Amino acid sequence: MITRPSLDQLGLSAGKKARLYRILHDHGLRNGTAIFLPYDHGLEHGPRDFFGHPEASDPGHIIKLALEGGFNGIAIQVGLARKFYWDYAGEVPLVLKLNGKTDIPSAIDPLSPVNATVEEAVRLGADAVGYTLYVGTPAQQRDFAQYLRVREDAERFGMPLIVWSYPRGTAIDAKGGRDCFYAVDYAARTASELGADLVKVNFPQPDKQSGVPEPYRRRFSPAEAIEAVVRSANRTLLLVSGGEQAGDEAMLEKARLSMEAGATGLIFGRNVFQRSHDDSLRLVAQLREILAKYPS
Amino acid sequence: MITRPSLDQLGLSAGKKARLYRILHDHGLRNGTAIFLPYDHGLEHGPRDFFGHPEASDPGHIIKLALEGGFNGIAIQVGLARKFYWDYAGEVPLVLKLNGKTDIPSAIDPLSPVNATVEEAVRLGADAVGYTLYVGTPAQQRDFAQYLRVREDAERFGMPLIVWSYPRGTAIDAKGGRDCFYAVDYAARTASELGADLVKVNFPQPDKQSGVPEPYRRRFSPAEAIEAVVRSANRTLLLVSGGEQAGDEAMLEKARLSMEAGATGLIFGRNVFQRSHDDSLRLVAQLREILAKYPS
Amino acid sequence: MITRPSLDQLGLSAGKKARLYRILHDHGLRNGTAIFLPYDHGLEHGPRDFFGHPEASDPGHIIKLALEGGFNGIAIQVGLARKFYWDYAGEVPLVLKLNGKTDIPSAIDPLSPVNATVEEAVRLGADAVGYTLYVGTPAQQRDFAQYLRVREDAERFGMPLIVWSYPRGTAIDAKGGRDCFYAVDYAARTASELGADLVKVNFPQPDKQSGVPEPYRRRFSPAEAIEAVVRSANRTLLLVSGGEQAGDEAMLEKARLSMEAGATGLIFGRNVFQRSHDDSLRLVAQLREILAKYPS
Amino acid sequence: MITRPSLDQLGLSAGKKARLYRILHDHGLRNGTAIFLPYDHGLEHGPRDFFGHPEASDPGHIIKLALEGGFNGIAIQVGLARKFYWDYAGEVPLVLKLNGKTDIPSAIDPLSPVNATVEEAVRLGADAVGYTLYVGTPAQQRDFAQYLRVREDAERFGMPLIVWSYPRGTAIDAKGGRDCFYAVDYAARTASELGADLVKVNFPQPDKQSGVPEPYRRRFSPAEAIEAVVRSANRTLLLVSGGEQAGDEAMLEKARLSMEAGATGLIFGRNVFQRSHDDSLRLVAQLREILAKYPS
Amino acid sequence: MITRPSLDQLGLSAGKKARLYRILHDHGLRNGTAIFLPYDHGLEHGPRDFFGHPEASDPGHIIKLALEGGFNGIAIQVGLARKFYWDYAGEVPLVLKLNGKTDIPSAIDPLSPVNATVEEAVRLGADAVGYTLYVGTPAQQRDFAQYLRVREDAERFGMPLIVWSYPRGTAIDAKGGRDCFYAVDYAARTASELGADLVKVNFPQPDKQSGVPEPYRRRFSPAEAIEAVVRSANRTLLLVSGGEQAGDEAMLEKARLSMEAGATGLIFGRNVFQRSHDDSLRLVAQLREILAKYPS
Repeated sequence: MITRPSLDQLGLSAGKKARLYRILHDHGLRNGTAIFLPYDHGLEHGPRDFFGHPEASDPGHIIKLALEGGFNGIAIQVGLARKFYWDYAGEVPLVLKLNGKTDIPSAIDPLSPVNATVEEAVRLGADAVGYTLYVGTPAQQRDFAQYLRVREDAERFGMPLIVWSYPRGTAIDAKGGRDCFYAVDYAARTASELGADLVKVNFPQPDKQSGVPEPYRRRFSPAEAIEAVVRSANRTLLLVSGGEQAGDEAMLEKARLSMEAGATGLIFGRNVFQRSHDDSLRLVAQLREILAKYPS
Repeated sequence: MITRPSLDQLGLSAGKKARLYRILHDHGLRNGTAIFLPYDHGLEHGPRDFFGHPEASDPGHIIKLALEGGFNGIAIQVGLARKFYWDYAGEVPLVLKLNGKTDIPSAIDPLSPVNATVEEAVRLGADAVGYTLYVGTPAQQRDFAQYLRVREDAERFGMPLIVWSYPRGTAIDAKGGRDCFYAVDYAARTASELGADLVKVNFPQPDKQSGVPEPYRRRFSPAEAIEAVVRSANRTLLLVSGGEQAGDEAMLEKARLSMEAGATGLIFGRNVFQRSHDDSLRLVAQLREILAKYPS
Repeated sequence: MITRPSLDQLGLSAGKKARLYRILHDHGLRNGTAIFLPYDHGLEHGPRDFFGHPEASDPGHIIKLALEGGFNGIAIQVGLARKFYWDYAGEVPLVLKLNGKTDIPSAIDPLSPVNATVEEAVRLGADAVGYTLYVGTPAQQRDFAQYLRVREDAERFGMPLIVWSYPRGTAIDAKGGRDCFYAVDYAARTASELGADLVKVNFPQPDKQSGVPEPYRRRFSPAEAIEAVVRSANRTLLLVSGGEQAGDEAMLEKARLSMEAGATGLIFGRNVFQRSHDDSLRLVAQLREILAKYPS
Repeated sequence: MITRPSLDQLGLSAGKKARLYRILHDHGLRNGTAIFLPYDHGLEHGPRDFFGHPEASDPGHIIKLALEGGFNGIAIQVGLARKFYWDYAGEVPLVLKLNGKTDIPSAIDPLSPVNATVEEAVRLGADAVGYTLYVGTPAQQRDFAQYLRVREDAERFGMPLIVWSYPRGTAIDAKGGRDCFYAVDYAARTASELGADLVKVNFPQPDKQSGVPEPYRRRFSPAEAIEAVVRSANRTLLLVSGGEQAGDEAMLEKARLSMEAGATGLIFGRNVFQRSHDDSLRLVAQLREILAKYPS
Repeated sequence: MITRPSLDQLGLSAGKKARLYRILHDHGLRNGTAIFLPYDHGLEHGPRDFFGHPEASDPGHIIKLALEGGFNGIAIQVGLARKFYWDYAGEVPLVLKLNGKTDIPSAIDPLSPVNATVEEAVRLGADAVGYTLYVGTPAQQRDFAQYLRVREDAERFGMPLIVWSYPRGTAIDAKGGRDCFYAVDYAARTASELGADLVKVNFPQPDKQSGVPEPYRRRFSPAEAIEAVVRSANRTLLLVSGGEQAGDEAMLEKARLSMEAGATGLIFGRNVFQRSHDDSLRLVAQLREILAKYPS
């Protein structure tokens, strides 16, 4: 088993450490773990993600949910942050998501354009910024260039940087797909090599073998796979994503395996808000129970 | 029914609030609603839009019409603003439209290039700036980047930003077209996520069902549709566009439904100026009657 | 008939007005009209334009011709301005042409790249700058962006901006061609919307009807056409171009119609210098006779 | 035989000389030769390069290996440098690799995007920076532009610049391939012409004759080939790369020939770390024996 | 016959005149003519250009040759300038070549990317900078933009700018090829229009008639052709290139015709260094004899 890295080991500047400490030890379970609520679906997927649960379309409602559920932070785009975060400013940490795109045009080899700056995140009182990096696309030249500017600003302002490290593109599709162990493992390592402070990945699916490169073409248990991903992320704190809504039990199992492997926490959106308010809080309570077992 | 958000709720800087207050409470009906006169057709469509009504080709005539009709603002390109606005400076608010394009080349996946700056808007005494965002095109990468620079300048100068949020492109065409409920709803939300202060949309047509994604493929009344759009715009003030000239009664009905749903106002161009002067004023009077019923 | 706008109506800064006053009232006929000598053919077409009249290849000769002919300005590229204008500095106004290209590669959808700056024009003592805008091409995104930077500098330095507003590209070819009334009319309006101080257009040919959009598909006399173009340019001073060499009588007639319609002046190159020195001066004298009838 | 250039001959600024002196005379054998450990495989190839030797996935382990093995420097990406170099700062020189890419998408004509700056290298206490230049691709326009900015910063900060000069692209493939003598020779010269301080090349394979241009189509011994490459690099210090793992004897022979020809040193990654710890140290000892014979 | 322009006529700033005076009157024959040694072949063609004459691969050897041969300057890339020019600094003028490319990828419509700056040329003590402009390619938009930045810096620092004005691209190939009179004549004029101080062209070949535009399709003697080119360059000093190695007599004849027509000098590379040292000096002596006859 891998020991989760402590804040002291990460080579952090004072500003980054102060903000990460606030997220990990002043909010949520205050035990060094974290659960984040991402809410950029209105841009990424459009309002249809809220159709089944109309109150989910109201950003104010969601921020309140993050507060009631004891989340360590809410990740939103700048427009919602400007208009809704003020009401709860300081009560729950803000992760300003700096890039995003609609899913209207096909995005075979996507790039997520920046729509806000780290400086704006500072002005809004954010404790971290988020950047979606599409690992493996031919657009990586422009993506890395755009990312570099964000990372430099994050260094300059002492702002923790969470990378949504998403394998995408035709090459990934041909090499096992976005959730295969190869893709997730490479994505975690890429974020670490490129200087992310935290990295958000999907839970790897080692049974997806078709097309994956050697030496990924052999048996890995889910536990082995997530352990390898944590190892690839090394001193980059790992957050495991919920992805599309799935059965609660499967989801809780992923959460357990991830924390056991050394992940720092979870980042769950649709799984949390695409249900009734009470049901959301019930699920979050279960997730918090798991996190409570892995203090650091 | 949704309550129209008040200026106090929008997280506005002093400069933005001062200018929006001026537009909404010092002009027009002075009741928190607004009707704008957009006049960028000379660039967007060429002089042919004025052929039927030659006096409509004269920017001075149009600004005078905005004044006489009690509009809350006139939206024009920088060339006309420099040459004609001086004559009426301060009498009617100026919305400087910052981007635009000719319709000569086909624009399957369009982008509207910037031709003026927020700083220039400040210099000209504008009370808001306008930006056309083509939601859903593959050019969204360059569009978002260009938009970000405009939005940052608008924040810096305390200048309200009105986004012309226009669904466009081959993907939109395949998913119901630019006026379908799905497209308009997503466009409203996109403007909100990306930090617009006001958003201009077309009235949604929920009966356009061909190709639209689930869960938009079911019955929505026009009233339900515009209400959902207002909800998607949340704390972004909604302006409903007139679009191409249509029958007066249909247009007045759209205006009524929009205001009832929580829109802040209307933005009507060709419907207003492609008729005789007296007829224009008569129509505007009818629209003002509607607005008068929705003070805030 | 349209009254030609006076300098007082144009919303000009002091610097722009001072320089335009110098061009229109201190040179040429000093009556508010203007005739310019453009001489960028060496770049745009290559030396072949001078083969029939070898002395035309000598920039010194041409500047002297502009002086002798009583022109209101000479429009040249930066290289020639640096090397030859010094000899006549102050004697005839300099219009520094800021962009240009060779005609060697095919240019189906052209863009004219900038090769000099407004600041350099100031340093060289220019009284105006020129910019070629290719209206109607798919390159309008980059063209407008490039133009914006030029226009901003022109505002900053109080430098009058003359836009060579040239309809071009496959869409224009399909909609009547570069000289049809539709194309010229739209080009004049585009320059006005985008903030040109003066606009150079070709004389419209209303008989070119094939492919032009409604409502241009009907009878317009040349006089009606040029009047409409002047109206579309509104407070942007209109200069009518000579284009390729044509018969003198036809050319003089165009000049007469243009001035009668409210144009501010003419800009004639090959028609002037592709003939003997004496013949050039004789033609210019005839053009001046026409201009003398339209003081302002 | 060619004499290896001394630091005094290279036209170095004080800062560059100080840092190179530190690398070449304060570390490793302290005799003017060098052996570097490159460790950017996690980004360039993904974690699979470490599968056979799990401890190789741990950056801390690798830096420790560089220290124990008496390397003159370790070349890593910024993320690993930030998180792991602090533990050994000053004990072994840091070469901050400034660009890199994943190998997920096909890269027929590759470009390696920058993900860190020279300024950051200074902040991290690096003694050199590395840049991968893909010589011979159609992307050379953007590559040279990107490289220029790096080189200018390196001049400004007195930071030695090591160019990974890699022949790549369809044209190279057609002209003998990336390892043929023609390709390696041209790449060495290109780095010298473009101002590299050190250049990393693969050992040339003069027997690869298919497609290479005249006059490379004749017999060259490996010794003649590497001598010619050293000559082409002239006053740019040459580092020979290990490339993919090969037999130890072949590798040691390449090292000998390179040093004999006038190379300054070696840069060996997978050959070193894709084996057990003891075996790594044994190999390094053999390489150091060779270097010890070529003091300068 | 055309009189070669004197430095007084060129509209030069003090800095440009001082440096050109140094080149033309303090070096070489000190009579206002010039012969330059270009040595960028290592980048443009690769080391193969030196295979026949191995000492030609040594930049130190070449600079020494320029000194012994009494050249007015040596044109090299920044890497060689940094590493080798110091040894002879001040003894022979340095022309820093600012752009260049490898010939590995096919370059149907080429662009030569910048790899050094005018500021760096100043720092290195250069007396001029060189820029390759590929006249006639579709890339002229980016080329002109890049060139503008170089020219502006050259103005700012008073640094003479020599344009390698090379007709290239598919359109040129279709219109007579890169050496036809039309191409060379247009290239000379383009450099003059765009503000070059000196222009390097190939000697025109008026017998290449296939495809050239009217009115170039008639008989021109070589003498008439080079005279026309000098006329097109007007106040831009003309340097005639040696091009690929040819017979000595033909080359000397070209030199004679060029100087007789009003060229300022010659720029000969491979013709000079692709022979034995003594033979090089013998040829240079013959060229100097010709230059001696055209003082200014």
